[in-house]
Amino acid sequence: MSITLADVRDAADSLKGAAHRTPVLRSRTLDAFVGAEVHVKAENFQRMGAFKFRGAYYACSRLTPEQLASGIAAYSSGNHAQAVALAAQELGSHAVILMPEDSPASKRAAAEGYGAEVITYDRYREDRVALAAALCAERGLTLIPPYEHPDVMAGQGTAALELIEQAGDLDALVVPVGGGGLMAGSATVAKSLLPGIRMIGVEPRDGDDTKRSLEAGEVVSVPVARTIADGLAAPAPGDLTFAVNRRLVDEIFLVGDDEICDAMRFAFERMRVVIEPSGATGLAALLSGRLKVSGRVGVVISGGNIDVSRFVSLLSR
Amino acid sequence: MSITLADVRDAADSLKGAAHRTPVLRSRTLDAFVGAEVHVKAENFQRMGAFKFRGAYYACSRLTPEQLASGIAAYSSGNHAQAVALAAQELGSHAVILMPEDSPASKRAAAEGYGAEVITYDRYREDRVALAAALCAERGLTLIPPYEHPDVMAGQGTAALELIEQAGDLDALVVPVGGGGLMAGSATVAKSLLPGIRMIGVEPRDGDDTKRSLEAGEVVSVPVARTIADGLAAPAPGDLTFAVNRRLVDEIFLVGDDEICDAMRFAFERMRVVIEPSGATGLAALLSGRLKVSGRVGVVISGGNIDVSRFVSLLSR
Repeated sequence: MSITLADVRDAADSLKGAAHRTPVLRSRTLDAFVGAEVHVKAENFQRMGAFKFRGAYYACSRLTPEQLASGIAAYSSGNHAQAVALAAQELGSHAVILMPEDSPASKRAAAEGYGAEVITYDRYREDRVALAAALCAERGLTLIPPYEHPDVMAGQGTAALELIEQAGDLDALVVPVGGGGLMAGSATVAKSLLPGIRMIGVEPRDGDDTKRSLEAGEVVSVPVARTIADGLAAPAPGDLTFAVNRRLVDEIFLVGDDEICDAMRFAFERMRVVIEPSGATGLAALLSGRLKVSGRVGVVISGGNIDVSRFVSLLSR
Repeated sequence: MSITLADVRDAADSLKGAAHRTPVLRSRTLDAFVGAEVHVKAENFQRMGAFKFRGAYYACSRLTPEQLASGIAAYSSGNHAQAVALAAQELGSHAVILMPEDSPASKRAAAEGYGAEVITYDRYREDRVALAAALCAERGLTLIPPYEHPDVMAGQGTAALELIEQAGDLDALVVPVGGGGLMAGSATVAKSLLPGIRMIGVEPRDGDDTKRSLEAGEVVSVPVARTIADGLAAPAPGDLTFAVNRRLVDEIFLVGDDEICDAMRFAFERMRVVIEPSGATGLAALLSGRLKVSGRVGVVISGGNIDVSRFVSLLSR
């Protein structure tokens, strides 16, 4: 159930024409702040605004015609929902999305905009995995999990594959870590192509499940994180993602909500791009002054789905 | 004193390696709203955050070594100041900038960050042209005007040259109009390469000097505009720019401040890019529902220099 570089290359072939080949941004100001040559993979410009489309589309594209006809289900704090909704729509299927009731309104509206049916739950009290299983059994849907799936991991890895094609050799790659799918795919690619690369995961300080799990050598759960980085609030890494990441990730760096806001402000004022809190964690690590990097560094901006009212409330504090 | 396509091509050669070849953005959501295939030239990603770098750098690059050694002067509501400051710095010269005292703080700080000396004046009461002439006489500086200069117009035209190279044939091109330099350069390129193209200028409703001038058949002044589009508040078109634009511009479309804010919000939430008010006027015209276009339409996003606090105050209204 692990993945290889060949799996990611297969995913990249499937995504041609479906996903955007997002740009790699450079900023002299950013380089000067960080003291390294920073290559920013802008997945906020991916379709539906986040890297999640890569894994969702690839996984959905491998379903049988019968499965597509019966429909697709997903649970998600937001971007995976939109990704599955859009993938299902493009593949002529339909999606049912289980979404936390406190998700940003823009994310719910976007999933519905892609034709999905949205069902909400309380992420502090209900178990989304059990709810999703019951829903699939009842309606004959196929569940596309947000990270616990080889095709999802392989699809997400195409972001790093493109970045290395676009930027060339990198000394380090900084990747936000929620459930660990983007990291698992990216680390598989990066360590295969550039064995000496330093893989740095970033988690919110109040959602350090992968850091704790790596230290413990096994999957460890933390309480549901109350962080502005809502996309990274998974209580524990997945078994599949953790099996990859414990082999390939060199370190996990933690960032605070204030550092995330500073990175969002930097991106807005100096790079003229919009990044959601989860998506800004890698940039926040680089701008924190606490993470020491040098040479040629890649960072994935994982998403840009934030509405103006939430941006205003976060950045006006 | 007019310009030709050959002048713009010369400028493009000089700008290679100095200016960014900015991306052309596409958005399915935007296309659906507008009812046309919209190609967005993202000059907010240009160096110093606006197209102004093109004209300023090209004009400065054509000065003699003696002129560069003596120094460069500019008057500007903001982006031209930063453009001249950065161009002077890159060419080993130094810049003195006359800037309205009510310019956004971020623009003044940016010019100073590029090593320029900033001198402020009251744009409601003082004549920046006379002030600049006195300054140049006193210090032996060469003035680079924001639009009344063939090299500046030719440099700005490279934005449209690139857009047509990147996007292919266009049925219409929508360009913000302040002093008219970007439009003069863009219209020269576009009407040469695509004689049937419809050139649509956009001005703020309270700064319609070019529209009135075109209607009158001569340069007409309006009171200093009190619009959020501070970069387009020129009281009258230039003689040089107007001579070009009266030949080549098909129409001027006016947008209100509310429409500009709506376009900034759309760009933020749907395209994940940051646009300053002046830079958003072209997009505002397309999103207004009042401008009828079809087929393949280009629009220049002319700049993205706005700090978070001003964005918050404009979008929280």
